[in-house]
Amino acid sequence: MRCVSYFSGMPGNSIGQSLVLTTYGESHGTQIGGILDGMPAGISVDLSAIQRALDRRKPGQSALTTARKEEDLVEFHSGIFEGKTTGTPIAFSIKNKDQRSQDYGELATVYRPSHADYVYDAKYGHRDYRGGGRSSARETACRVVGGALAALVIPEVRITAWTSSVGPIILSEDWQNLDLSAVDAHPTRCPHPEKAAEMAAYIEQVRDQKDSTGGVVSLVATGLEAGWGEPVFDKLQADLAKAVMSINAVKGFEIGSGFAGTQLLGSQHNDSIEKDFTTTTNHAGGVVGGLSNGAPLELRVAFKPVATIGKEQNTVDADGNRVVLEAKGRHDPCVVPRAVPIVEAMVQLVLADHYLRNKKYKA
Amino acid sequence: MRCVSYFSGMPGNSIGQSLVLTTYGESHGTQIGGILDGMPAGISVDLSAIQRALDRRKPGQSALTTARKEEDLVEFHSGIFEGKTTGTPIAFSIKNKDQRSQDYGELATVYRPSHADYVYDAKYGHRDYRGGGRSSARETACRVVGGALAALVIPEVRITAWTSSVGPIILSEDWQNLDLSAVDAHPTRCPHPEKAAEMAAYIEQVRDQKDSTGGVVSLVATGLEAGWGEPVFDKLQADLAKAVMSINAVKGFEIGSGFAGTQLLGSQHNDSIEKDFTTTTNHAGGVVGGLSNGAPLELRVAFKPVATIGKEQNTVDADGNRVVLEAKGRHDPCVVPRAVPIVEAMVQLVLADHYLRNKKYKA
Amino acid sequence: MRCVSYFSGMPGNSIGQSLVLTTYGESHGTQIGGILDGMPAGISVDLSAIQRALDRRKPGQSALTTARKEEDLVEFHSGIFEGKTTGTPIAFSIKNKDQRSQDYGELATVYRPSHADYVYDAKYGHRDYRGGGRSSARETACRVVGGALAALVIPEVRITAWTSSVGPIILSEDWQNLDLSAVDAHPTRCPHPEKAAEMAAYIEQVRDQKDSTGGVVSLVATGLEAGWGEPVFDKLQADLAKAVMSINAVKGFEIGSGFAGTQLLGSQHNDSIEKDFTTTTNHAGGVVGGLSNGAPLELRVAFKPVATIGKEQNTVDADGNRVVLEAKGRHDPCVVPRAVPIVEAMVQLVLADHYLRNKKYKA
Amino acid sequence: MRCVSYFSGMPGNSIGQSLVLTTYGESHGTQIGGILDGMPAGISVDLSAIQRALDRRKPGQSALTTARKEEDLVEFHSGIFEGKTTGTPIAFSIKNKDQRSQDYGELATVYRPSHADYVYDAKYGHRDYRGGGRSSARETACRVVGGALAALVIPEVRITAWTSSVGPIILSEDWQNLDLSAVDAHPTRCPHPEKAAEMAAYIEQVRDQKDSTGGVVSLVATGLEAGWGEPVFDKLQADLAKAVMSINAVKGFEIGSGFAGTQLLGSQHNDSIEKDFTTTTNHAGGVVGGLSNGAPLELRVAFKPVATIGKEQNTVDADGNRVVLEAKGRHDPCVVPRAVPIVEAMVQLVLADHYLRNKKYKA
Repeated sequence: MRCVSYFSGMPGNSIGQSLVLTTYGESHGTQIGGILDGMPAGISVDLSAIQRALDRRKPGQSALTTARKEEDLVEFHSGIFEGKTTGTPIAFSIKNKDQRSQDYGELATVYRPSHADYVYDAKYGHRDYRGGGRSSARETACRVVGGALAALVIPEVRITAWTSSVGPIILSEDWQNLDLSAVDAHPTRCPHPEKAAEMAAYIEQVRDQKDSTGGVVSLVATGLEAGWGEPVFDKLQADLAKAVMSINAVKGFEIGSGFAGTQLLGSQHNDSIEKDFTTTTNHAGGVVGGLSNGAPLELRVAFKPVATIGKEQNTVDADGNRVVLEAKGRHDPCVVPRAVPIVEAMVQLVLADHYLRNKKYKA
Repeated sequence: MRCVSYFSGMPGNSIGQSLVLTTYGESHGTQIGGILDGMPAGISVDLSAIQRALDRRKPGQSALTTARKEEDLVEFHSGIFEGKTTGTPIAFSIKNKDQRSQDYGELATVYRPSHADYVYDAKYGHRDYRGGGRSSARETACRVVGGALAALVIPEVRITAWTSSVGPIILSEDWQNLDLSAVDAHPTRCPHPEKAAEMAAYIEQVRDQKDSTGGVVSLVATGLEAGWGEPVFDKLQADLAKAVMSINAVKGFEIGSGFAGTQLLGSQHNDSIEKDFTTTTNHAGGVVGGLSNGAPLELRVAFKPVATIGKEQNTVDADGNRVVLEAKGRHDPCVVPRAVPIVEAMVQLVLADHYLRNKKYKA
Repeated sequence: MRCVSYFSGMPGNSIGQSLVLTTYGESHGTQIGGILDGMPAGISVDLSAIQRALDRRKPGQSALTTARKEEDLVEFHSGIFEGKTTGTPIAFSIKNKDQRSQDYGELATVYRPSHADYVYDAKYGHRDYRGGGRSSARETACRVVGGALAALVIPEVRITAWTSSVGPIILSEDWQNLDLSAVDAHPTRCPHPEKAAEMAAYIEQVRDQKDSTGGVVSLVATGLEAGWGEPVFDKLQADLAKAVMSINAVKGFEIGSGFAGTQLLGSQHNDSIEKDFTTTTNHAGGVVGGLSNGAPLELRVAFKPVATIGKEQNTVDADGNRVVLEAKGRHDPCVVPRAVPIVEAMVQLVLADHYLRNKKYKA
Repeated sequence: MRCVSYFSGMPGNSIGQSLVLTTYGESHGTQIGGILDGMPAGISVDLSAIQRALDRRKPGQSALTTARKEEDLVEFHSGIFEGKTTGTPIAFSIKNKDQRSQDYGELATVYRPSHADYVYDAKYGHRDYRGGGRSSARETACRVVGGALAALVIPEVRITAWTSSVGPIILSEDWQNLDLSAVDAHPTRCPHPEKAAEMAAYIEQVRDQKDSTGGVVSLVATGLEAGWGEPVFDKLQADLAKAVMSINAVKGFEIGSGFAGTQLLGSQHNDSIEKDFTTTTNHAGGVVGGLSNGAPLELRVAFKPVATIGKEQNTVDADGNRVVLEAKGRHDPCVVPRAVPIVEAMVQLVLADHYLRNKKYKA
């Protein structure tokens, strides 16, 4: 490498203010894990429910995802005693069991297109190149564990995400018309059987072409109180955007009317307020002035197509020599179905954090 | 109000880690202002250039914006000595001169649709209702001052935003084909004369209907080094999204290919790397794996239509009584032209912060 | 100066987590001030009481302190509406009225012994040398304002500091035997008339010798609940120590038995717990395991003698040339009496912050 | 317990800004551990040296300490690749092997004097009472690992702590006259053979009386550059005080002249500056105006006597019933010798953090 001086910046592996998740781990190290600090005391934790949340993210769940089998078993090391949280930090870890390093050997020198290889070298000089190291989406498993714990802080909030598009196959149905309890019924995590079938067919076609596709995850959360979010910089939509945009491969974020709303008139877009302070419409997507207003939170998240593809691609190695790359091994042709629980996890973390930040003061 | 206990949460009026802007002020208090802490020492500051940056945001610049005249003069109180920064906090303030409180009297009790009145009451119980108080977009003037100072930290970076759509009038030209030096030549801040004229006509039409419109601001930044951004949560696009989504009225954020990119194949979307580590395409929008890759940063930001309109609207007051609201006074039919320097400011703050966070260590 | 590269570190002008005070200002700039963010909404603020708190710190109160007259008038700019806090940031400022820069002219080049001149140059390269600039104790005026506001959050807590030693004159009486309401009755702020007279005589003697003296400030706070403080790093005594040690001229901090307690046996030092969970003794000084236990908080703070003295001293200028320095102008021979309200202010800030951090969660 | 609502405050298990250590773990859980985030890339790590640092803290090293045998083996899970840091978070863990829970059974209900049992119950409601849980000094093992890693960031800095008093046995020799390389030569960690022998005899005597004693740890650090520390709240001595005061059982902190310095005159206390910007004396203890001045950093830390003693003590249980307590099991009569590496670790963490915070900017 060309670097003679190395990174020593401020770190960024923590998220949250009152409820703070810090994660660690490379895809081919011995394990990944994290610490969740700020969890209130006295909350009952069903460890098997956390494991089930994690299982929703793992690869190998269907023919649509990578054939890698990862037995992601989460272990807890602290902060839970006799089945309840103690208010002290909760540490957890997940062993990396399937470490076939030989699959990734050439990554030591080749910079894969649209991967983090080059930028990590530019920043750090020295990196764990095995399987993408820290830049691998494997770290998102820790987010799912953190999110599942965070969700226990706000049991009255119901958060559901689903696949609303895969490549050109778009589900434009309003969420109120969907059976959100059926998200997991189909491998695509699209709760609309016909669209789900189309999406599955498209993913298979793309996979057979050794190519990949992107898509959109939609999310709705109900049960929020009015007033969550902190002006003027930590507005609820701002922290949600940050959390979701920090997921690998995300390139866009919308709340409520999003980009489409820019084409409405104010008189069309404004949400009238009723006598019970609810609104007749919800173009706001549940957030006004940076604070939740009690209406359902509605988000959309854009995932680019997976960068790792079996097709030949031109690139270079660390010395600038041209290389033709042809990814081998087991890769997802579309991450969107597996991204659904990850998006949910980030929203769980942000909402629990802002619930705790918005504590009331008895005057 | 119905609240018997009041907000005492963690505050959110600061942004940045190495370079921290904290702002204060209500629209109809005596003044607004802020403190920028973490500014490196020894940087020459041209105070009149900061004022010019602020002038780009002020109302009353053209017939397209509100007729309010605000002489926003920024004063500096610390951290600059003999024309250069000292490394100590830079405090600044802007007097609120045009405080016609009588225009806003009914706001004490009426909850305006799609405004923050209700949610501020729900959160804080006690609020400064005059002109929206803290929730007014007036606070963004402080962001522009902070951004103009931050830009001095990264003189090699060139950041330009422009109006790329107003309501249904969309400029789809690629930025390389636009004359970005001409953004301020037209009141719409659209650097394409024909589209600018269409946008202006549309804004006037909407204004005459006592209505409002939204639009999109696009931004490009060049001159970034590879390696800015901190995995895994403070990725560059994540902090950019947060900063931009914290601006009033923003409902969507895209980087690079954004939502449109979800419909491409991986083989189309991947950016091939050349021998000099540049890429042939830039679907990434300048960020890969959460780090800048040296390519131009490309963002798009969705602004909803202005909530304050002259048309009659149904709403309620704080006691839940139905009210018909008809906004009087002077309001922007479209904030997008004035939002251009605000988007730039938030990007200036984030890039300077991440430049400073990514300090190198001599091994 | 010899520096070719300047400071760009992470800033440190903020303190607190839930209640955050950020200050700015140089001693001879136009003004100093700060922003207090995180103040709960709905708290009544008596502005004249804040001013009175500030008046306790100002110079020129008696013959024992510097003859400088500073009319420190605090102005508030935001966050208070109709006499009550709104939950938004409270900004305040204090004009610098008495700026006789000619007194300090030589400071541009001379490094005063035990002052920050040299280290500021080493760190920042470029500094405001007038009157010590940012390193002047003048900034502590902002701490007093912040502390007086913070105290409103915890009205049930009573915080009192006093002068317990000046040079070799030591008040060793237990605080329970002192009339703490009489602290301000004597210019020394020693609530023991005989010791106060001795201290005053000593200060006058030292002043006449163009010399200075140090001393100790003691503090007791009652009315804390059990449970304030956050293990394992933000323990209550740790944050108190930091806050107090950040005051100019402080060189030591003790809680409870302090250094003297190291000589006791465990059987002597342990505080037995009674049936109502109070303790029979209070060697702990009100903090056990990093958390308040409800007993009075007892602190002691060591202030070194004032560095600015009228006597001749050997030093060097920025080029390393030897200089004989003889301070002119108006200086305190002993800062301890004026430091009493500053110590109180830092404890007010820490206790209010930890009160807010220790919010309860309804299971 | 009487609590009906539980803690949900802001957490405090992290320390540092640029280099952040977060720890977790209870004394009788399966393991303790931590994450060090912000470690610069490219630093060689000798894992066995980290283990040796940890070994200096463990119990059972001599007859003077508890007879408990803890094989504290640290394992690393991330952030180190091919023997060097990668700039990503370094996670580590230490298994709890010696978990004789039966020794601690009554702790479930009894509140030990001067222990955290009562205040943890008051704060959290639900706690892991086994062996003190999170409040046990066992967590300091993680500080030693973090400190040993942090020390690699500042190889030019030499940090040495030693036992300077045990109960009434006081070593008043100036550090320049001591052989600081001989600290570990004696079980007391006092580098003065005669005093060490006296201290050992005193500890044995106290132990035989089923009692305990406190003492003082002194520390000196050389090799600092001028300019570390961030005004006005994150002054170097303030962050050092916080870090050290967060160690269990610490009740006092001094830098430089400390409390004794309050009795000197300014003309005695001021440190004259020489032509090379060094000082002739070092009453400052290496910090002036909150910034290091390049002189040796000199600290003193007071440890109260160990709370756990074999003697009978009166206390109560959680229901307020009187209990006579007589500690069984294996306890240190004096923690000071084992505290020496813990004090060093906290100083290593603070100095490395401030070194990184004080990055230079090329103008």
